[in-house]
Amino acid sequence: MVHADASNFASGITKEEAYQQVLDQFEGLFYEQRNWVCNLSNASSLLWHAYKSLPSPSNQVNWAGFYTFDTSSPPNKPQLILGPFQGKVACQTIAFGRGVCGSAAQTQQTQIVPDVDAFPGHIACDGDSKSEIVVPIIVEGKGVVAIIDIDCTVPNGFDEVDKAYLEKLADFIAKSSDWP
Amino acid sequence: MVHADASNFASGITKEEAYQQVLDQFEGLFYEQRNWVCNLSNASSLLWHAYKSLPSPSNQVNWAGFYTFDTSSPPNKPQLILGPFQGKVACQTIAFGRGVCGSAAQTQQTQIVPDVDAFPGHIACDGDSKSEIVVPIIVEGKGVVAIIDIDCTVPNGFDEVDKAYLEKLADFIAKSSDWP
Repeated sequence: MVHADASNFASGITKEEAYQQVLDQFEGLFYEQRNWVCNLSNASSLLWHAYKSLPSPSNQVNWAGFYTFDTSSPPNKPQLILGPFQGKVACQTIAFGRGVCGSAAQTQQTQIVPDVDAFPGHIACDGDSKSEIVVPIIVEGKGVVAIIDIDCTVPNGFDEVDKAYLEKLADFIAKSSDWP
Repeated sequence: MVHADASNFASGITKEEAYQQVLDQFEGLFYEQRNWVCNLSNASSLLWHAYKSLPSPSNQVNWAGFYTFDTSSPPNKPQLILGPFQGKVACQTIAFGRGVCGSAAQTQQTQIVPDVDAFPGHIACDGDSKSEIVVPIIVEGKGVVAIIDIDCTVPNGFDEVDKAYLEKLADFIAKSSDWP
């Protein structure tokens, strides 16, 4: 059975170790459960608590969660819709190509943004957010089913380590759930 | 557009005022948006931040979120499945009738549990949780589509004020979203 202790991370661990624990825990959290809402809800919690266990800038993460492909959006106007997350309330929908999340969805490429105010078309859902990383979750034959979105209250919150591990996570999540 | 400021609550407000702000904000958050995942995600965030703005015991809330009716469960074995929430990772599924959440779903009645350890069949997802309130979200003709679940790390975390306002919220949420 899933237990809240999975959200506990030892103090003093490195970012790599925290992400590896997240990856390891995911296997248990997603065991015999392919419901995407359930899985993304637990995933956002696990990521949030991993960041909070780390030194700055990681512990300055103020939003960690998901937007999913909005299956009700018209083919010529695809959009993302808010999914499970941890943090303050957030924008409901984001058009493909708009802002950091929309760019990741459209290009199918991870976006690392050291300073969101310098990003053309940035959507200022929360003025406290200063940097951001967005990683597409891609399913073969379906395209982008969701994106992982992490915001941080300080600039340069994310680096290549975050990118490498979040892309591993995205791949795992893509395969572990059934998508609408 | 939804803005993170909706999650900000003034300090020194009463519980009634905080809940009233949640109710008022919900109308904006749910405006022209009937997607239940999107709406429950923002709702759990709003509730979480409301509790954190209040004095003890409300600010000792350690989990605020939703379980929804699992439409894939067999008719003779109905169960809830984890939905959007704020807090530590949580149990994926809960059978109707099991624990506090399952009892609320089966009886269609709000459960206020001042001491979870004294509740028969309590599911100890998180040992830190000492009291709990669970409110069913009921849609006419469909029955229980979801439950609101709030946990607190101290006993007697919830009272009739919580019950009254969370039942208002449940009614609003029931009507504001399309359910699977």
